[in-house]
Amino acid sequence: MGNDARVKDLFKSIGKDTPRADAVDKVKGTARFGADIHQAGMLHARLLGSEHAHAQIVSIDYAEAEQLPGVKAIVTGEDFPKADMSGIGPWINDNMARGKVLYHGQTVAAVAATSVAVAEAALALIKVEYKPLPVLTTAEAAMADDAPLLHDHLEKPPASNVYATENISEGDIAAGFAEADIILEEDFSAPTAHQGYIEPPACLAEFQQDNVSTIWTTTQGHFIVRANVARTLGLELSQLKVIPSEIGGGFGGKGSPYIEAITLLLAKKSGQPVKCVMRREEVFRRTGPGSAFQGHYKIGAKNDGTLTAFQADFSFDSGAFPGAPLHGGMDTIFRCYRIPNVEVNGAAVLTNKPMVRAYRGPGGPQVTLGTEVLMNELAKKLNMDPIALRQQNAVTKGDPGSVGEFREIGFEACLEAARESEHYRSEVKPGQARAVAAAYWHNGGGPSSVAVHMNSDGTANLLTGAVDLSGTRTTLAMIAAERMGVSVDRIHASVGDTESTGYNFVTGGSRTVNVGGQAVTMAVDDVLRQLAERAASGWNITPDRIVWDQGEAVNPDNEERLSIAAICRKAPYTGGTISSTASLSVPSDISPSFAVHICDIEVDKETGRSQVTRYTVVQDAGCAVHPKMVEGQFQGGAVQGIGWALNEEYVYNNNGVLENPAFLDYRIPLASDLPMIETIIVEVANPLHPYGVRGVGEAGVIPPLAAVASAITNATGALMTNLPCSPSNVWQAIQNQSQN
Amino acid sequence: MGNDARVKDLFKSIGKDTPRADAVDKVKGTARFGADIHQAGMLHARLLGSEHAHAQIVSIDYAEAEQLPGVKAIVTGEDFPKADMSGIGPWINDNMARGKVLYHGQTVAAVAATSVAVAEAALALIKVEYKPLPVLTTAEAAMADDAPLLHDHLEKPPASNVYATENISEGDIAAGFAEADIILEEDFSAPTAHQGYIEPPACLAEFQQDNVSTIWTTTQGHFIVRANVARTLGLELSQLKVIPSEIGGGFGGKGSPYIEAITLLLAKKSGQPVKCVMRREEVFRRTGPGSAFQGHYKIGAKNDGTLTAFQADFSFDSGAFPGAPLHGGMDTIFRCYRIPNVEVNGAAVLTNKPMVRAYRGPGGPQVTLGTEVLMNELAKKLNMDPIALRQQNAVTKGDPGSVGEFREIGFEACLEAARESEHYRSEVKPGQARAVAAAYWHNGGGPSSVAVHMNSDGTANLLTGAVDLSGTRTTLAMIAAERMGVSVDRIHASVGDTESTGYNFVTGGSRTVNVGGQAVTMAVDDVLRQLAERAASGWNITPDRIVWDQGEAVNPDNEERLSIAAICRKAPYTGGTISSTASLSVPSDISPSFAVHICDIEVDKETGRSQVTRYTVVQDAGCAVHPKMVEGQFQGGAVQGIGWALNEEYVYNNNGVLENPAFLDYRIPLASDLPMIETIIVEVANPLHPYGVRGVGEAGVIPPLAAVASAITNATGALMTNLPCSPSNVWQAIQNQSQN
Repeated sequence: MGNDARVKDLFKSIGKDTPRADAVDKVKGTARFGADIHQAGMLHARLLGSEHAHAQIVSIDYAEAEQLPGVKAIVTGEDFPKADMSGIGPWINDNMARGKVLYHGQTVAAVAATSVAVAEAALALIKVEYKPLPVLTTAEAAMADDAPLLHDHLEKPPASNVYATENISEGDIAAGFAEADIILEEDFSAPTAHQGYIEPPACLAEFQQDNVSTIWTTTQGHFIVRANVARTLGLELSQLKVIPSEIGGGFGGKGSPYIEAITLLLAKKSGQPVKCVMRREEVFRRTGPGSAFQGHYKIGAKNDGTLTAFQADFSFDSGAFPGAPLHGGMDTIFRCYRIPNVEVNGAAVLTNKPMVRAYRGPGGPQVTLGTEVLMNELAKKLNMDPIALRQQNAVTKGDPGSVGEFREIGFEACLEAARESEHYRSEVKPGQARAVAAAYWHNGGGPSSVAVHMNSDGTANLLTGAVDLSGTRTTLAMIAAERMGVSVDRIHASVGDTESTGYNFVTGGSRTVNVGGQAVTMAVDDVLRQLAERAASGWNITPDRIVWDQGEAVNPDNEERLSIAAICRKAPYTGGTISSTASLSVPSDISPSFAVHICDIEVDKETGRSQVTRYTVVQDAGCAVHPKMVEGQFQGGAVQGIGWALNEEYVYNNNGVLENPAFLDYRIPLASDLPMIETIIVEVANPLHPYGVRGVGEAGVIPPLAAVASAITNATGALMTNLPCSPSNVWQAIQNQSQN
Repeated sequence: MGNDARVKDLFKSIGKDTPRADAVDKVKGTARFGADIHQAGMLHARLLGSEHAHAQIVSIDYAEAEQLPGVKAIVTGEDFPKADMSGIGPWINDNMARGKVLYHGQTVAAVAATSVAVAEAALALIKVEYKPLPVLTTAEAAMADDAPLLHDHLEKPPASNVYATENISEGDIAAGFAEADIILEEDFSAPTAHQGYIEPPACLAEFQQDNVSTIWTTTQGHFIVRANVARTLGLELSQLKVIPSEIGGGFGGKGSPYIEAITLLLAKKSGQPVKCVMRREEVFRRTGPGSAFQGHYKIGAKNDGTLTAFQADFSFDSGAFPGAPLHGGMDTIFRCYRIPNVEVNGAAVLTNKPMVRAYRGPGGPQVTLGTEVLMNELAKKLNMDPIALRQQNAVTKGDPGSVGEFREIGFEACLEAARESEHYRSEVKPGQARAVAAAYWHNGGGPSSVAVHMNSDGTANLLTGAVDLSGTRTTLAMIAAERMGVSVDRIHASVGDTESTGYNFVTGGSRTVNVGGQAVTMAVDDVLRQLAERAASGWNITPDRIVWDQGEAVNPDNEERLSIAAICRKAPYTGGTISSTASLSVPSDISPSFAVHICDIEVDKETGRSQVTRYTVVQDAGCAVHPKMVEGQFQGGAVQGIGWALNEEYVYNNNGVLENPAFLDYRIPLASDLPMIETIIVEVANPLHPYGVRGVGEAGVIPPLAAVASAITNATGALMTNLPCSPSNVWQAIQNQSQN
């Protein structure tokens, strides 16, 4: 499976574009998202946000609010049990402040009422007395020696808002730089950026005292919501059922809950179902964006282009609770290249901002900015083709990866494909500039579960434990069809709830088609085993003698054939319906992806406005099960990365108040802003997956920050190191450059 | 397990009364029944019923109705595909008339509109032109030589409304009667009676063109609804998901669908979700009641009480489509007794009434009336104790049953327990009379499926394929807890939908705890096998060496113990979540139940009104998993049987119009009508079930018809042979008797 053509030829379903199971619903508007769930007698919740970014809560008085007709329940942090949240993250403290508020907008009270209007009127009647504290809005400020500490439990030595550090030391960094003919060194930074999902978090919760409470919610991981809410509210896992809705984007930001525990507590207190839907402003102020980043980078190479040393010191801004993508950053920052001497120090820092969450390839885009911009600068200094420089240093099978040695990987193939692409071979248009950037992403593992139930007409119901963020119902159905030897329309895949499959980790980390696909093949293999037993029993042969051919069991003695439908028709009465569950856990970081992006850009030097004119994503999918959806992932990742590179950033004032909590001021790319993103799918099969899948969701968001910054650098001569490359920042960089 | 005490002693969970999982919801009113399901944008359906009981439909004109603002879709029988309904019953023809109406109230058109009021206004605008045909309201009339044929496809020779007959001939019937010292012979009849469930049929349907349509409905068998609706509308099984709601009674009457296909077709035509809720009058006119019955009985015995011959000719009134409980009647009519010479002829006849459905022990109550009344009369003539007469002829292990020889059965134990009961040994109170009656019921089998998913805190989610009609979620959880060696509150049982377990036949036929319980033990055994593998792998021993003790795996080498919770905590990462599915099919009729009822009654001879003063149910449960729920089944069955005996009947006029379609005129027993029903649980373990369960849902409804009729006979001297024993009928019988 070394290239696209081979994958398409090898398989019957895999590699063929197939109508998405969720397409018609989504196009027609009948898909049911988080806010579309209704229950009889349901109340509406609204949340009161803190006026301060950092303050002691002196008192919360909601006596008057409670008297308002239609108000059915009010809860504050004090209503939550003092749950042991070890091992499952500090999310409840983020969801609802207790004692202290740590960021502006943090929820301090919640109201359930008969209407949204009544709930909002009640919010206005709640009196909260605060004692303000100094506000820390940057990691730099939070790391200062005299910075106030955000969390009491960190007040042990070493008392610090730096809650975690990691270090990688390989080789001899001093010797590495001594060996270098050329050394480059720069500071880089990227701002806080939001995932920008279209659908705000929304849920509906029902509490049952003696039975099972239910939460319908939009999430990337209903089992994570269950674990978190059950722990928060002191329930056994079997006492809570979480049903995922369709999801209007997550990109990592919906991997952990925001409002579910609060809503269920309101349902408990009111005795009625309660619905809670966030608004866009709340999404910006109160959900977890991607982490801001700052770092100092130093790279050394010989004149022949051989890298000798890489050093970086960086910090992630985690917001008010530990959640920064430190591991993602550490593991990604130099992994594309064979560098004998490396020293990387990373830190994660608490600030008075909302706790960050995962954002597509978490940590990867930020740390890769500096690495890849310096690689481009190095190529210029060495007078080398930037792809050739990367090829010279590219990791390959046998080189050290993040977990042991790399197995078959696709970086060299991606570099080769990029270099040979029509885009890269084309002339740069007059007035434009071009740059490339590469990325490594480790891809996630963890547990996945599925269940398969065969129907008596031979169709199969495939329940996935994974939420479908991007069409994975269809992809997993294609894998099942391939394995079973039947047409994909015979497989109906749907997303289970927390009761209908085994535990499944989030849909995220590029893991679903990889790990979930392995679970599907296990379950289908077990179904085929059972089908063979039934067929063999009828033929009086042993099951191992059954030959499968195009979804039919064949008796080798006489060429008699039995379709799966024929076997299933009698199955309920020949031993029972044929069903199977499968569950497995795959280690993380063992099925990595690589990508190379090519960006052409035109910069208006008078205004600093940049226009991407052509953009190509080259990425190793391992096996593109559904090529069109793979391309969609490549394109979507690139667009989000370009947005982060060009315009997206959280703008805080000195009081820690976010000043641009709306899509008018927080500028994500529109379709009209960008050219069609071109894609080249490379397929170097993952040897750890039955069909070679690697996962494709994240690597595409990583290179654009550097590709765009370097392209602008090439267009203007002004080195871009601090994102976003917004018109004002680019204009300023041009001014600074011309003054030097 | 020969008696109650032994079962309770043997087990930890089984045999202990346990709070029902559904109790709090149902008491609080928060349980969600069929009519409680809502979806955004949902329309409301109303059905137009035929004005005639038998007529050609000349035309249906709904052009005007369609123009009414708010009307979104109208369908008639012509909108349904001409589906092949072979093998799954003729229900669609019953649901919606096509070409011909066959009973009064049969649906001829259905409207979906923005409100119920608009839908009803639209019904009034639909013009249906009929060409009336002669109406047949009794089996007798339908069997007449010149009776019009209801169905064209029966117009082949022998052209008849008798669509099925069955015969049993054993021994030499003439010789048997010749051998008899005494012969009794009578005609008996029982009227059409409704199951009287509290909750009318209700559903909500959504149609998806390219994906999966969903039906939420109140049903005893969501897989049956799926099969029927999918076949009716030409869908693959995987294209339809049926989600059962809580159910407010079924008793067999909700084992097959009424409105689901119509509602889904309205949803398809309108493009919106559609809800349909029947009204009580519609429930009486348009759903399937229990079959009316008439039969001629003849029984012969020697002077010592030995039965020598039994003969019966009977017919069931099936209503407008084949559905009469002919098999249940044939199999039940003489099965309590060893009779060497038997001749039974049964027929099922079509009439212009709604198609009958199953009603608790379908066919059993009707056919047993004559048998048991004659046994009581025989005992009087022989001057024998009526229980002693039965004991003398009672079937036992090794006697021929309906399928092969009887295994261990509990009839003798029930007779003994009844004879020794405080009730039977007590003096009959002055002015009262007493009678007994016995029953055999074969109990159903068929396919059941469950799934078990272990949570990381060691709790288990048990998904049953069976709808929970009467607390079986709890009973099945108890069996799982027993098998797993854990407390029952560690098992959360819930009812799956058609996608989350394998195929499961209806909850009915007394099959759920029997067959479903076997599926549970299979699944739990598989879970324990997996748990043992995980534990053994940690201890470096082979899994077969693991000893289970009170829900803990024990290492026999060192007595180390691992709880299920401890194993499950790590399971997602030691090979995946522990899940299992189990499915099996059990033959019907192999785990039979027997019951003996004792009825004391007082009859007001001036008015004919009867008052049951004391009533005891003795029944073999095999193993009473949840004794209180078993008692509830005994009591509920007895009450329904008493209602049928005393007052319940469909009253038709000559035009085939039901004249009492409401609970005011169709008189089911109220709590104030009856004494507390006493119960004696006999436990003769079913050797085919891991815990000895037989199923207890049906046998209890069978004896009351005869017990009450004989008790009234004993009180009045007037032989009661035609039900109901309503005041007017009893008064008339007394008058007839005194005139003889």
